[in-house]
Amino acid sequence: MSFLRRQESIKTKNRFPMELGRIKKMISVEEALQTILNSTQNFGVEEIPFIQSVGRILKEEIKADRDFPPFNRVSMDGIAINSEQFQNGQKSFPIEGIQPAGSAQIALQNSKNCIEVMTGAMLPINTNAVVPYEDILIENGEAIIAIDVILQNQNIHQKGKDAKVGDLLIAKGKTISSAEIGVFATVGKSIVKVAKQPKVMIVSTGDELVGVAETPLAYQIRRSNVFTLVSLLEKLEIPSETEHIQDDKQLLKQRIKTYLQSYDVLLFSGAVSKGKFDYLPEVLEELGVVKLFHQVAQRPGKPFWFGQTKSCKVFAFPGNPISTFVNCLVYFYPWYFKSIGIEKQEETAILSEDVVFKPNLTYFLQVKLSSRYGHLIATPITGNGSGDLASLVNADAFIQLPKETTAFKSGEVFPIIRYR
Amino acid sequence: MSFLRRQESIKTKNRFPMELGRIKKMISVEEALQTILNSTQNFGVEEIPFIQSVGRILKEEIKADRDFPPFNRVSMDGIAINSEQFQNGQKSFPIEGIQPAGSAQIALQNSKNCIEVMTGAMLPINTNAVVPYEDILIENGEAIIAIDVILQNQNIHQKGKDAKVGDLLIAKGKTISSAEIGVFATVGKSIVKVAKQPKVMIVSTGDELVGVAETPLAYQIRRSNVFTLVSLLEKLEIPSETEHIQDDKQLLKQRIKTYLQSYDVLLFSGAVSKGKFDYLPEVLEELGVVKLFHQVAQRPGKPFWFGQTKSCKVFAFPGNPISTFVNCLVYFYPWYFKSIGIEKQEETAILSEDVVFKPNLTYFLQVKLSSRYGHLIATPITGNGSGDLASLVNADAFIQLPKETTAFKSGEVFPIIRYR
Repeated sequence: MSFLRRQESIKTKNRFPMELGRIKKMISVEEALQTILNSTQNFGVEEIPFIQSVGRILKEEIKADRDFPPFNRVSMDGIAINSEQFQNGQKSFPIEGIQPAGSAQIALQNSKNCIEVMTGAMLPINTNAVVPYEDILIENGEAIIAIDVILQNQNIHQKGKDAKVGDLLIAKGKTISSAEIGVFATVGKSIVKVAKQPKVMIVSTGDELVGVAETPLAYQIRRSNVFTLVSLLEKLEIPSETEHIQDDKQLLKQRIKTYLQSYDVLLFSGAVSKGKFDYLPEVLEELGVVKLFHQVAQRPGKPFWFGQTKSCKVFAFPGNPISTFVNCLVYFYPWYFKSIGIEKQEETAILSEDVVFKPNLTYFLQVKLSSRYGHLIATPITGNGSGDLASLVNADAFIQLPKETTAFKSGEVFPIIRYR
Repeated sequence: MSFLRRQESIKTKNRFPMELGRIKKMISVEEALQTILNSTQNFGVEEIPFIQSVGRILKEEIKADRDFPPFNRVSMDGIAINSEQFQNGQKSFPIEGIQPAGSAQIALQNSKNCIEVMTGAMLPINTNAVVPYEDILIENGEAIIAIDVILQNQNIHQKGKDAKVGDLLIAKGKTISSAEIGVFATVGKSIVKVAKQPKVMIVSTGDELVGVAETPLAYQIRRSNVFTLVSLLEKLEIPSETEHIQDDKQLLKQRIKTYLQSYDVLLFSGAVSKGKFDYLPEVLEELGVVKLFHQVAQRPGKPFWFGQTKSCKVFAFPGNPISTFVNCLVYFYPWYFKSIGIEKQEETAILSEDVVFKPNLTYFLQVKLSSRYGHLIATPITGNGSGDLASLVNADAFIQLPKETTAFKSGEVFPIIRYR
């Protein structure tokens, strides 16, 4: 059984010596994470339209298909001249023609003349400086230069200055943002190779759960964790499917057997504790899913079960909403990042107040983040324990407080895991 | 004319006294931003399925539809007892029944007995403590308690402890993340009221532009800024449409006239300089768009034109890719945030090296961000000036260096604008 708002209440536990023995058997957060990171999976590569690729991981090198700029490019609207004429004292240049952007290159026929040029145009042949409209006066078809210094190549963006044909512009493995979209368009990559996403099924269990649009009876509550997980995966651009299975061992076994064959990842929420109807660990093992661990020395999120078959990873999160939430961020996210080949930089923040946490567990504490003078400050959000409904709403991240310590001081720095 | 990779090259300018006069006429970044923030617009409210609401702005209060938990909720799998019996010395409790989650509440008939209870279940009537399986031994239908201390109400998540019916759980105006999705589901908000998004048209101009999948001629380049803008808006969950218009004044006028009637916002990239075919400012004013400013004292992004009609805002960004990019972040983003009613916290970072920038312009410098000991460090990315193709790819943010200063020291703190 189990599920929404499960409270792995360890409040009364450390008072008893037998509890210590139990906690020692549990795997640490670091060991759990290492086990998961040793079980990454390659989902392959797919080709998609570049405009749909934001948030995805680039799986090819993007190179310049030509020099950039592809020609000596006029970078100010004005006139193009042969600057030697100006150095020789000529101030007034008859306008011989016009060179718009998007037109074939023309040539200055008479070096004493000039050509009007527009930003983005090819620099006309026989010219080597652009004088902007601001610095000239046009009268009777002649441009009179009103300044005293003109440098050769001024206001010309030289061919190949930004990149030479064949130059690497974006390395393989980059997470695609709006910045990369612009480069794809520039070099004509209308289709890009990206890491394929895992195929994910998210399963809720528990007879007490009803649909979001339903009115629960006194002893029922609504399904919520699957939707939280769907949206946490959506942040990674991973589409997912969801199912609900009643607490019936045979049904559970039958459905999970199918999922194991059709998906790369199964995410469960609930049914992983010691309850009479917590069939999940049993069923998974009967179906040949090799358990890699069950129970991690952390709060919240302790009764986490992780296992695998050859083709499928199974993350069975505890049913409490905050447990599911934090475990998805702490375990599924890094597993996914490593699987598709990206390294995430650890982010740290400064604790704004003293925190005491006695259990010998890694503590994932909800914090609000603020930026002050280049410092990232983490202010703890006081919830009602792991079952608190709205404390995730008031926080922005979890700060990870190590299990070896019980007193954490204001001003100390710890890793954080952001979710907004 | 104008466009992609326009370089508002001011390299040679400050040498000439007339340039100073010109720069003084320009509006500052702060004035430009204030003007834009005084022109916000309310797009109204719409109702959407909760699961599609991530990234949107909540426009209703979310209240608890019942107490949470809705009943005294068992938070550990084990047995429920009347703790007075235990305090009176009883250690062994015959199992009278079972209370699964998702079942109607039962009652303990005999206070010397116990009921097996599952996480998530209603606490049976006549019981007031839950002893987890870990702390008991079950033999011949009796549960023998193996610990010495049992507290009243232990492992019971009290009805209404997290929230009372009617309590405010999420305030109006919150940006919806996965955390809010879970709360919506829990309280049965299958449909939520969110801020309606503006209707946006993104227009490119310039005869030198060809499509992304086309092979450009020597004097042509591919359209890219519209796609960058599409993806920058997508980050805000704003869908947009795009069009390309050739440099033909009549055509431009005719098409923009229609757009002004059909959209809340028009974004242009290019055609806002002094080029012979830069019809845009002229056309916009002829169509009754009131110009609020043109040219801002900044680099990159100087030739930015902003105006409005009664129902439509027009952001005409300069055509250089980095100019378009930074101006969308610096002006459109805050305008949008204020329009839909959210306040964004300013983020700051610590400059990692000295920077000298002499022009009397606000300098938006591309930086790579890293987190060290709770400090956010901004390392400048050296590009080739505003036309640099790939420097956005190597950076994460812009740092905003004020125009009044020319020497910025390593260790000083300035605002940043992130884009990844």
